[in-house]
Amino acid sequence: MDNFNFYSPTEFVFGRGTESSCGALVKKHGGTRVLVHYGSGSAVRSGLLGRVTDSLKAEGVEYFELGGVKPNPRDGLVRQGIALCRKENIDFILSVGGGSAIDSSKAIAAGACYDGDFWDFYCGKAKIQKALPVGTVLTIAAAGSEGSPDTVITKEDGMEKRGAGSDLLRPKFSVLDPELTFTLPAYQTACGATDIMAHVFERYFTTTKEVEITDRLCEAVLLTMIKETPRVIADPKNYDARANIMWAGMVAHNNICGVGRSQDWNSHGLEHELSGLYDVAHGAGLAVIMPAWMEFVVDTDVMRFAQMASRVWGVQMNFEDPKSTALKGIRAFRQFLHDIGMPINFAQLGAREEDIPLLVEKLGVGDGVRWGFRQLTAQDCADIYSLAANASLS
Amino acid sequence: MDNFNFYSPTEFVFGRGTESSCGALVKKHGGTRVLVHYGSGSAVRSGLLGRVTDSLKAEGVEYFELGGVKPNPRDGLVRQGIALCRKENIDFILSVGGGSAIDSSKAIAAGACYDGDFWDFYCGKAKIQKALPVGTVLTIAAAGSEGSPDTVITKEDGMEKRGAGSDLLRPKFSVLDPELTFTLPAYQTACGATDIMAHVFERYFTTTKEVEITDRLCEAVLLTMIKETPRVIADPKNYDARANIMWAGMVAHNNICGVGRSQDWNSHGLEHELSGLYDVAHGAGLAVIMPAWMEFVVDTDVMRFAQMASRVWGVQMNFEDPKSTALKGIRAFRQFLHDIGMPINFAQLGAREEDIPLLVEKLGVGDGVRWGFRQLTAQDCADIYSLAANASLS
Repeated sequence: MDNFNFYSPTEFVFGRGTESSCGALVKKHGGTRVLVHYGSGSAVRSGLLGRVTDSLKAEGVEYFELGGVKPNPRDGLVRQGIALCRKENIDFILSVGGGSAIDSSKAIAAGACYDGDFWDFYCGKAKIQKALPVGTVLTIAAAGSEGSPDTVITKEDGMEKRGAGSDLLRPKFSVLDPELTFTLPAYQTACGATDIMAHVFERYFTTTKEVEITDRLCEAVLLTMIKETPRVIADPKNYDARANIMWAGMVAHNNICGVGRSQDWNSHGLEHELSGLYDVAHGAGLAVIMPAWMEFVVDTDVMRFAQMASRVWGVQMNFEDPKSTALKGIRAFRQFLHDIGMPINFAQLGAREEDIPLLVEKLGVGDGVRWGFRQLTAQDCADIYSLAANASLS
Repeated sequence: MDNFNFYSPTEFVFGRGTESSCGALVKKHGGTRVLVHYGSGSAVRSGLLGRVTDSLKAEGVEYFELGGVKPNPRDGLVRQGIALCRKENIDFILSVGGGSAIDSSKAIAAGACYDGDFWDFYCGKAKIQKALPVGTVLTIAAAGSEGSPDTVITKEDGMEKRGAGSDLLRPKFSVLDPELTFTLPAYQTACGATDIMAHVFERYFTTTKEVEITDRLCEAVLLTMIKETPRVIADPKNYDARANIMWAGMVAHNNICGVGRSQDWNSHGLEHELSGLYDVAHGAGLAVIMPAWMEFVVDTDVMRFAQMASRVWGVQMNFEDPKSTALKGIRAFRQFLHDIGMPINFAQLGAREEDIPLLVEKLGVGDGVRWGFRQLTAQDCADIYSLAANASLS
């Protein structure tokens, strides 16, 4: 096990009706002038936004609204938010929505405390030193952004999708009410589930030896997702299944499953180019990329893939041919993704094989390599895209 | 799943040599005048205390020392610590040791900010409203106190053992260096492992339905302990096995495994009377009590015990007779405890069957019941003690 720091100070308030505690939570965490930042009109139409602002009013907290966050949130709206924070002396950002709204809020929180352009944090030119406090009311179980230090933003100019992170961006509080996810369509629910599982797999495939506790925690989240995802697809208002998924989404990404071990975020990196270029859902892109990445890297550590197959997918271990077990595990994963309604190849996703050179170019690997469980050259990345393009269930 | 709040704000610094960061961590968390509170001479002899105080000196932090914490920490030393904090205007308590040193530190932290007698918090007369910040350097993986809001103190007068808790007592930081546990004797190592597993079982046996994520997280910790405990007993300087156990001990008790579900702390309650009366190790008492409690309550939810047997102990499910599976799981647990060197009945623990009426009297159940997975009357408690007194491996 490697040395590590683990710090997850967010106060999580979980369960039915908890959004009514927003006002009190903002006040407790020092907010007096709040930017309420949200996405589509669904938060307005469902009445959620009204309940949230009522709870702010009840506590006498002043607030300003900024809606319009899109999936794959854009830099333009972030800049609007930063300007609004400065103009109105905002001291707290309350995010209402899914990962996109939260990531956009985090970007505003960091940008509002920075003299330069906020994109400096995303292109690696500057490190986040200060940020406004952020609270969240989560409406989609997926990104794990409600408990994570991470944020991903897409630059409209060139549709470049990049991430940044800092413990300063960990939300002060996150309100998680599973009932808010009842109305989420099956496709988006499945995209979220795929993202949650990917967050675990990116930690599970490690080169660090002897990390039983985090291996087992990863498997715990995956087994939960395998049980609960088909249940919510079949029965969207199943509270307990929604609740298990919602909490699993937090556990998958606050890094309790990833400490003390090397991680591999190449599937996320390869996917970002897909959702950047085609503006498809991140989870759908992951469903296409991740099993292909697994197939490409399986020989790096066959026994680790066999462990996944056996412990997570219930594949009987073939002790004479562990690789056959490993491959059965990867096939089981792809079959699961198909069964919950996810695309499994480029055609189903709406991507084009002839764009692979462009995708690889945008990755920017050049003559170098992408670090990870297995280091990837530009040609390796092209090969993975190619496997993903042509994947099938057979 | 039940509604819940989860808040675990401790900064964990984990790995080899991390105790040298103590001074910087105290400073970061606002400490300027520190009480260094520790247990036996082993922290002095091993040089650990010197490394800790060197690191405080290097940061220019003033400190005062108070050693002498015993296992089952006593109220007398807590009162000394409170007096010292007041006299020296202490603003931070740094605990060096295992659960006893940390629990004693938490008691001092709360007591120093309270006008009445600190025992009021432990006998239910008062609620903790304020506490000095606490940091820890952990030397025994067991109590989970390094990440928990809990503290247990024994009153010398009558050897009454009682607990208190508050999120205010969650440590600001905890330094976990697995190498510090290399010199821990096999018996104490096994006691610690038993305590860790008990913290999980007290959460696992719930009456709340549909809590797959926390069930799986509980099982993750148990499976880790089953793998790693025999390894450290056989090879005390196995860094990775020590590391997995040390982190499992934190995960077992910061409540990430217990949120959203009813819990049952009757085994801990029944054990406290044993370690209070005989001054035996808490983990050893749990090894005697917990399997007996399981045997007594198994009919309350046979399928939950069968799930434990199957998922945790690898028992083949008997679908025609689930109770036989459940009982095999309990037997496997007791066998495991025996194999790691724990006592499994009163004689091996040094307790006496004829004291059972006294133990039950001290529990103070009277004509009421103890709340839990199954409610327990005074007679039920006597029956569990009796099962524990006469337990065997057959």
